[in-house]
Amino acid sequence: MVTVNKNYLKLQGNYLFSTIAKKVAAHQKENPEAEIIRLGIGDVTQPLAPAILKALHKAVEEMGNVETFRGYAPEQGYEFLRNTISEQDYRARGCEISPEELFISDGAKSDCGNIQEIFGTDNRVAVCDPVYPVYVDTNVMAGRTGNFNQERGNYDGLIYMPCTESGGFIPEIPREIPDLIYLCFPNNPTGTAITKPQLQEWVDYANRIGAVILYDAAYEAYISNPELPHSIYECDGATECAIEFRSFSKNAGFTGVRLGFTVVPKNLKRNGAGLWDLWERRQGTRFNGAPYLVQRAGEAVYTPEGRQELSAQVSYYMENARIIREGLEGAGFTVYGGIDAPYIWMKTPENMGSWEFFAYLLEKANVVGTPGEGFGACGEGYFRLTAFGDREKTKQAIERIRQIESIRK
Amino acid sequence: MVTVNKNYLKLQGNYLFSTIAKKVAAHQKENPEAEIIRLGIGDVTQPLAPAILKALHKAVEEMGNVETFRGYAPEQGYEFLRNTISEQDYRARGCEISPEELFISDGAKSDCGNIQEIFGTDNRVAVCDPVYPVYVDTNVMAGRTGNFNQERGNYDGLIYMPCTESGGFIPEIPREIPDLIYLCFPNNPTGTAITKPQLQEWVDYANRIGAVILYDAAYEAYISNPELPHSIYECDGATECAIEFRSFSKNAGFTGVRLGFTVVPKNLKRNGAGLWDLWERRQGTRFNGAPYLVQRAGEAVYTPEGRQELSAQVSYYMENARIIREGLEGAGFTVYGGIDAPYIWMKTPENMGSWEFFAYLLEKANVVGTPGEGFGACGEGYFRLTAFGDREKTKQAIERIRQIESIRK
Repeated sequence: MVTVNKNYLKLQGNYLFSTIAKKVAAHQKENPEAEIIRLGIGDVTQPLAPAILKALHKAVEEMGNVETFRGYAPEQGYEFLRNTISEQDYRARGCEISPEELFISDGAKSDCGNIQEIFGTDNRVAVCDPVYPVYVDTNVMAGRTGNFNQERGNYDGLIYMPCTESGGFIPEIPREIPDLIYLCFPNNPTGTAITKPQLQEWVDYANRIGAVILYDAAYEAYISNPELPHSIYECDGATECAIEFRSFSKNAGFTGVRLGFTVVPKNLKRNGAGLWDLWERRQGTRFNGAPYLVQRAGEAVYTPEGRQELSAQVSYYMENARIIREGLEGAGFTVYGGIDAPYIWMKTPENMGSWEFFAYLLEKANVVGTPGEGFGACGEGYFRLTAFGDREKTKQAIERIRQIESIRK
Repeated sequence: MVTVNKNYLKLQGNYLFSTIAKKVAAHQKENPEAEIIRLGIGDVTQPLAPAILKALHKAVEEMGNVETFRGYAPEQGYEFLRNTISEQDYRARGCEISPEELFISDGAKSDCGNIQEIFGTDNRVAVCDPVYPVYVDTNVMAGRTGNFNQERGNYDGLIYMPCTESGGFIPEIPREIPDLIYLCFPNNPTGTAITKPQLQEWVDYANRIGAVILYDAAYEAYISNPELPHSIYECDGATECAIEFRSFSKNAGFTGVRLGFTVVPKNLKRNGAGLWDLWERRQGTRFNGAPYLVQRAGEAVYTPEGRQELSAQVSYYMENARIIREGLEGAGFTVYGGIDAPYIWMKTPENMGSWEFFAYLLEKANVVGTPGEGFGACGEGYFRLTAFGDREKTKQAIERIRQIESIRK
């Protein structure tokens, strides 16, 4: 008789965003007239930029011609894309990351989930609290945690690093010694950015204890402060301890196009094994490459036209962030993030529970956000709004929140 | 100090097709003038059909317009595609598979590798020998096997089901009792199809012992005999014991476009857990949906134009199969497959080793095939050729093999 992976049974309820989607659908069904505004899930709303559309149409043409048709892509990704990324995302910032160290994929969510497979199940995992749920859930599913502790509201066996208001939402070095450390900056969900000296401390710490940092830089395009690092490889010694994840979802609007990449430096070795070799084997065995069309679209992101168009798109979203931040501050809320990241992390009024605040906003204002508790116990009392909405709807949403807030008060 | 997944260290050499690619590249480098013909990897060569190109261009347009832009796809896939598949691939053949039971993905290779995650690592796995290496390697990586046994040429702890000439390349029920049974029909690499009564035996057996069959039907479009089953769900009781994988790679030329799906029936339960729920959770947590563009391309496969154009494409490849089969038979080779499958499984002449025959064909004829041993110990003495090449090159390849064979004799 076959057995199932019992680790799955430890998982709590549903994936956060599925739960929210169901609650919103139920509300819409009960209130068919309601014009719901979604600032919950971090999904983009602006159309693909002209340079990308042009590249896609061209690649479709190529796929229709026997001379230029492409079958299986190289599992690591086409060189035209890896060369471009190496040059423009890394060498241009002084990071010696070669095209061979880049692995093109269908997105950072897949890679963040898949990477843990190359490590032993005995490793101790450290995550920020609040945290993007994928880091936690994939480790639960792999058996690196104990059961969910209902009292504490998190999993036994994981090392949680609280990111609190008093610490500026930057985690402190944990008391227990971890083997794998997940960091995400600019941060989802708190919208906090990390400085280079702060990140260097983590790199030095990981090298000292032999840990590996899994660094999610999916939001680097939203950094406005020129002093902040876009890649962990801007820190000394990072190629000896860090794997970095990047996404095209937010800088180029590819949430429905699917493209990302992972950097595994050749220098990165543990127990005598090269992590590059393990990841190369993992991808070669379990992945068949990102679509040719999509890789050409990715290449267009780096052209002068693409850069210009996408810089305008990022500015559009960051103007939304400003509107949300200033609007909520004006209404008396305490608000973080939204300057070097597309997320606004607001405190709920008068210590209202975050799911309670979710229900309140949905019910009274028809506005959807994400309850902080969905990201971990330390997210309780906070609420995440995203800047990825349409401008007018974002303005309306903030206006509605201001109105209900003035009534509530 | 972090530890790596030591199961990876049990893996033998490289992924088969990477090894072949390297050997071919080395031969090309030494012989820059050589016109190498590749009938090795199962990669298609015909361009995308006009109906698919049209759907792709239209979807690109939609992605460029704010009103029709699409962000994150539903993790299980768009309903427009799942409804079509349910109707045309299943209900039209009398199989009650609902759209809810379909999970759209980036391809069958990913799904075949990912599916094992929802099962315990204590399950005993049965695979055919020869076999598509992904089934074996992903289970090695997950820790469901012992070490590689150099003497036997396979892994300890796996149940190998020999598929031999005398058994018509159909496996027999194994003596040891398995929990997970991988079957692939029409078969890669042997090109053998299974009859409905033969498949029914496996379904009955799995239901009797509580095993789950992982059924790879990636090549169903190549079945020419109308009596043969295209889906395992044509067998009674299969929704209680089988998961099916399908691909758009070979019926629609999507090897570089990436689309597939997995069927997990709601009826399928083990240890009180619904496998549908586990897989839904797995995909929801670790996958972000197939690209909208690609799902629209998949939908076009089922339109009247798409069906007609792709039927012509399959016929083109099957004419190649006929040319290979008859050409080799005419040259005195013993040949199997190529009638209900795009693969030709030939015996090497005079018991030549399959890697030796690989080197011989590459060296003397500049033709690339796949050594049977690469698919398992029982593949020794066989060689796989694929029908996915260009017509003229396929003819040339067979002509070259006939010529060197007449010299060798």
